[in-house]
Amino acid sequence: MTLMTANQTAINMSVHPSSTDSIAVWQNTINQAIAAIEWPTHPSHLYRPIQYTLEHGGKRLRPLLCLLGADVMGGSVTEAMPAALATELFHNFTLLHDDIMDGAPLRRGRPTVVAAHGANSAILSGDALMIAAYARLQAYDGIKLAQLFGVFNRTADEVCTGQQYDMDIADRDWVDTAEYMRMIRLKTAVLLGAALQMGAITAGASATAQQCLYEFGVCAGLAFQIQDDVLDVYGDPNSFGKKAGGDIDAGKNSYLRVRAMEVADEASREALLQWYSSPPGELRVREVKRLFDHLGVHQLAIGQMNALLQEAKSSLIATPDASVDSLERLWTFAQTLVKRDN
Amino acid sequence: MTLMTANQTAINMSVHPSSTDSIAVWQNTINQAIAAIEWPTHPSHLYRPIQYTLEHGGKRLRPLLCLLGADVMGGSVTEAMPAALATELFHNFTLLHDDIMDGAPLRRGRPTVVAAHGANSAILSGDALMIAAYARLQAYDGIKLAQLFGVFNRTADEVCTGQQYDMDIADRDWVDTAEYMRMIRLKTAVLLGAALQMGAITAGASATAQQCLYEFGVCAGLAFQIQDDVLDVYGDPNSFGKKAGGDIDAGKNSYLRVRAMEVADEASREALLQWYSSPPGELRVREVKRLFDHLGVHQLAIGQMNALLQEAKSSLIATPDASVDSLERLWTFAQTLVKRDN
Repeated sequence: MTLMTANQTAINMSVHPSSTDSIAVWQNTINQAIAAIEWPTHPSHLYRPIQYTLEHGGKRLRPLLCLLGADVMGGSVTEAMPAALATELFHNFTLLHDDIMDGAPLRRGRPTVVAAHGANSAILSGDALMIAAYARLQAYDGIKLAQLFGVFNRTADEVCTGQQYDMDIADRDWVDTAEYMRMIRLKTAVLLGAALQMGAITAGASATAQQCLYEFGVCAGLAFQIQDDVLDVYGDPNSFGKKAGGDIDAGKNSYLRVRAMEVADEASREALLQWYSSPPGELRVREVKRLFDHLGVHQLAIGQMNALLQEAKSSLIATPDASVDSLERLWTFAQTLVKRDN
Repeated sequence: MTLMTANQTAINMSVHPSSTDSIAVWQNTINQAIAAIEWPTHPSHLYRPIQYTLEHGGKRLRPLLCLLGADVMGGSVTEAMPAALATELFHNFTLLHDDIMDGAPLRRGRPTVVAAHGANSAILSGDALMIAAYARLQAYDGIKLAQLFGVFNRTADEVCTGQQYDMDIADRDWVDTAEYMRMIRLKTAVLLGAALQMGAITAGASATAQQCLYEFGVCAGLAFQIQDDVLDVYGDPNSFGKKAGGDIDAGKNSYLRVRAMEVADEASREALLQWYSSPPGELRVREVKRLFDHLGVHQLAIGQMNALLQEAKSSLIATPDASVDSLERLWTFAQTLVKRDN
């Protein structure tokens, strides 16, 4: 798949070892920057849960996108890093609070803060972590601070809105695809777009360039989330690291489920409603999956992902004043993310 | 009590009708500005609890101090208002989350958000309210934005730290006075100081003037909090609006309790420990109050309040480039606050 940029240079879209290398290098740099944040020692009940949450590892997707956004616009990792950390700290704040709301016992194989220290600790540590995310932006001033602050405020509010929509639809057995897309857009995709835009801002990018990278991130983020839903049912449990069909077992609304309800004939729809209201377990997972296969929602999801990737690509190509090498690296990275098997 | 300003003008410290008038006018302006904030209609579960929390009325102490801080430095209400709203929204965010942590059923005679809608709603609405507080600061740019943002971030973190210290000492039956003062400084006083400082920033005040007003607000805030503890035991229940001795009944650490433990002879200390570990109720309230009287902690608290007011006054007098009329109004207001009987 080749990317034709605004100045019509064809880019080879195979994964370059050099790209993968720089991603790994940046992940490492991000991890070092996170480890270097100096948290107060006291009160330990406030700051220890924050450190515990941040040391989990993970892909560091948001700060990576922020650094990539800066790189595309000719900026430096050094100048983009505080904004990158703001996105990662904010993301971890959402994990802390979402885990309370979801009653989640585990995250990445370790007890959640709420499970280990109780809700009060998770609430207050989460609050302090959100404030610490904002505080990273103090590294900037002038127009960059004003722009970063505006994007961050808007996005933070949207992520809360997305979480509320997610809770609102949690107990409903029929959700429109449009509603579902709005929810994942707000809950997940806008922060990925904002991370890219914030990186671009630190590099002094124009409003148009910022907007192109933002749209690219949002579309890629939507594709990424749909892939997450697909992997839950069709992924290799060994490489995905979760039990296959976990979303079906938990009765969660997913892209596959809402699309299935949308395209189903009356008999299939009745069967879906019935299986989702039956007790969780292997039988439900097997029968719902059989209905998904019958309705072809796996293919529909892949089609939607590809359409979103095309849209993402169009935004990326339209980005003015971008470095072609860096655009290529960003595009390669987005493809590996969305087409991932874990 | 007269205030001698830096340029040695003696100020009459009696309460001026004109001062009281302008405070009431500003309270009204603040309430109108709060009511004029346009919250999204959806998702209603996210934004309705925020509106419910903000419409409670109350003294609007923090935004008032912000407007007063601007006024002292020759600024305008219009320019200070977004910063004033940021402090009030932030304060209401802390109420939303503190009520979860404290399991509080009522606030100002109405069910708390956590009691009415559950913890998840109070967590997420609180998060969105904190973000909305930050978003008020988007009204500024340049050096004012950078300064406001720095003060707000630092103060927000300190308020969380104060809340954590409050929870840490909640179950201890012996707390040092210094620990208690640190807790109320962080939990309550720094936000009052920050409100004044932020008002001064919007007026373009110098760093020295900002610092003087901040210190004034912190000292007055500490005195205000001690007065709160005093009123709980010695206030007129009819005008205070709470049951007398509520803090003793609840076994709460208060300035009176920690000072009593500090100055007590061994027998009184043993008696205090015993009464606080006995069942709550009228007997405990009466006996602890008797011990407080015996140890003279009411007088000690009043002495501490007056010392803090003197310190506040010194900071206020040292404020460079301040309007004398406005200083007088601020000083009068602080005195009515601290010497209040409700």
